[in-house]
Amino acid sequence: MLTDAIKTYQQRVDQVLRQHLHSLDDAAPTLKAAMVHGALLGGKRIRPFLVYSVGNMLNVPLAILDNLAAAIECIHAYSLIHDDLPAMDNDCLRRGQPTVHIAFDEASAILAGDALQTLAFDIISTPIDGLSPKQQLEIVKSLAKASGYQGMCGGQAIDLSATNQRIDLTRLTELHNKKTGALISCAVEMALIAAQANENDYDALMNYAHHVGLAFQVQDDILDIIASTEELGKPQGSDQQSNKSTFPQLLGLEGAKQTSQQLVDDALSELTKLPYNSQLIADFARYIIARRI
Amino acid sequence: MLTDAIKTYQQRVDQVLRQHLHSLDDAAPTLKAAMVHGALLGGKRIRPFLVYSVGNMLNVPLAILDNLAAAIECIHAYSLIHDDLPAMDNDCLRRGQPTVHIAFDEASAILAGDALQTLAFDIISTPIDGLSPKQQLEIVKSLAKASGYQGMCGGQAIDLSATNQRIDLTRLTELHNKKTGALISCAVEMALIAAQANENDYDALMNYAHHVGLAFQVQDDILDIIASTEELGKPQGSDQQSNKSTFPQLLGLEGAKQTSQQLVDDALSELTKLPYNSQLIADFARYIIARRI
Repeated sequence: MLTDAIKTYQQRVDQVLRQHLHSLDDAAPTLKAAMVHGALLGGKRIRPFLVYSVGNMLNVPLAILDNLAAAIECIHAYSLIHDDLPAMDNDCLRRGQPTVHIAFDEASAILAGDALQTLAFDIISTPIDGLSPKQQLEIVKSLAKASGYQGMCGGQAIDLSATNQRIDLTRLTELHNKKTGALISCAVEMALIAAQANENDYDALMNYAHHVGLAFQVQDDILDIIASTEELGKPQGSDQQSNKSTFPQLLGLEGAKQTSQQLVDDALSELTKLPYNSQLIADFARYIIARRI
Repeated sequence: MLTDAIKTYQQRVDQVLRQHLHSLDDAAPTLKAAMVHGALLGGKRIRPFLVYSVGNMLNVPLAILDNLAAAIECIHAYSLIHDDLPAMDNDCLRRGQPTVHIAFDEASAILAGDALQTLAFDIISTPIDGLSPKQQLEIVKSLAKASGYQGMCGGQAIDLSATNQRIDLTRLTELHNKKTGALISCAVEMALIAAQANENDYDALMNYAHHVGLAFQVQDDILDIIASTEELGKPQGSDQQSNKSTFPQLLGLEGAKQTSQQLVDDALSELTKLPYNSQLIADFARYIIARRI
């Protein structure tokens, strides 16, 4: 059932993204193609999944969630394009495909990332039936906070500055809470704003998102050690090679596995505070640390 | 009087920008410093000037305009940082100072641009006393449209693809309407939305902005030929050297001067349709083609 839901929402958000991208005019065809390449390269669509599954649990119609899911995926896609650039992580492969600056060129990759970030804000500032302007403005604010200096961009900057340095667990946790966690939490927050959730639901689900987001990164670090290049779509052990601090490095492989399990347990315990059937997002939390890719 | 107003608004928006940037925490100090360098490098602050002067003419309190002006300048600053990158225009100097990737490094410049774009949307999605959420959402939408594929980013992509090619006047005009014009028009549109302007005022002022935006670029091309490096803060003739199409190249120097004069005349004639004292923005239109830097 989780697998079906992931696939359904993945296809759904891809369709929405495709519509937005294909509806752009052809005035700058290379830029458009680079944006399409970066945004429709595949991927698990974890952030859209959370928008849809949390929103659906809170009785928000899927049609309202479509553009929120598409917008947050545009932000994620832009961040991958820029992170892959030679001046950043210098990655040539992403999901088994050439990264945007390889398939096109660096200038196009920079611009495609820039324009995908803007597209995210364009999409969520277009009036959505069923949401008030006040709700939409709060959603814009949530996405901006999660993406910018206080969130994802700041996390990537900390990550870059920490390369070739040993950082402690507090700093590593801060790094990932910002770099990956902020956008995962934002996916849940968007759904909460759309649902006009009460304080109890808001707190429990934001805590859930916080734990899931960190568990996701710990598992990524674990997979970087144990999975093969073929499964990951990127060179195995690439974090080790680039000498970045990781959770297994600081905690040992077993310690990292225990941490991710604890985080998922904490996430699940938040869900018991909710008066809804939260089976799907509970399964999702378990999947986060069971996944092999 | 124009000179005083330009200086007043310049100092005002710099103060607002400084507040926003200095209020960021110190979790990523290099990124923060790179953002400050890129956003507070000086500059004429033409877009903020238009937000303030048009808004003030339409009786919008300056305090309401502050964050609109700061947001649009964040977008402009981010675009300069990214345009200066080696993969793009590869410029080492901007306003007589080292560009961000020179003063810091490429990764910091990419991230600083990214985070300044996000900061723009963060600033205008924070509730502003005196504006309704509906107005603010329209302002977000206006800024996103002007900055993204349909606007500035698209224009920069067309510009890159046109390097080393001779393009015709229609395409060159489209390029600059997007690359520079869209954001100048957006500055005026933000003020119009804040003022809840009627259709007559809206149309006249958007036409004014359109003409002024293009005149600004034609004059830039003219200055690139006639001004000295010291005045421009960048190598003189750099457009010619990089073999970009320019208005003087297509129209001759005299033809380009006539075009910019005609554009300013057209802008001024739009202002006669307004029931306000439009002296300041009329003077600004004349200044656009009289300026030497």
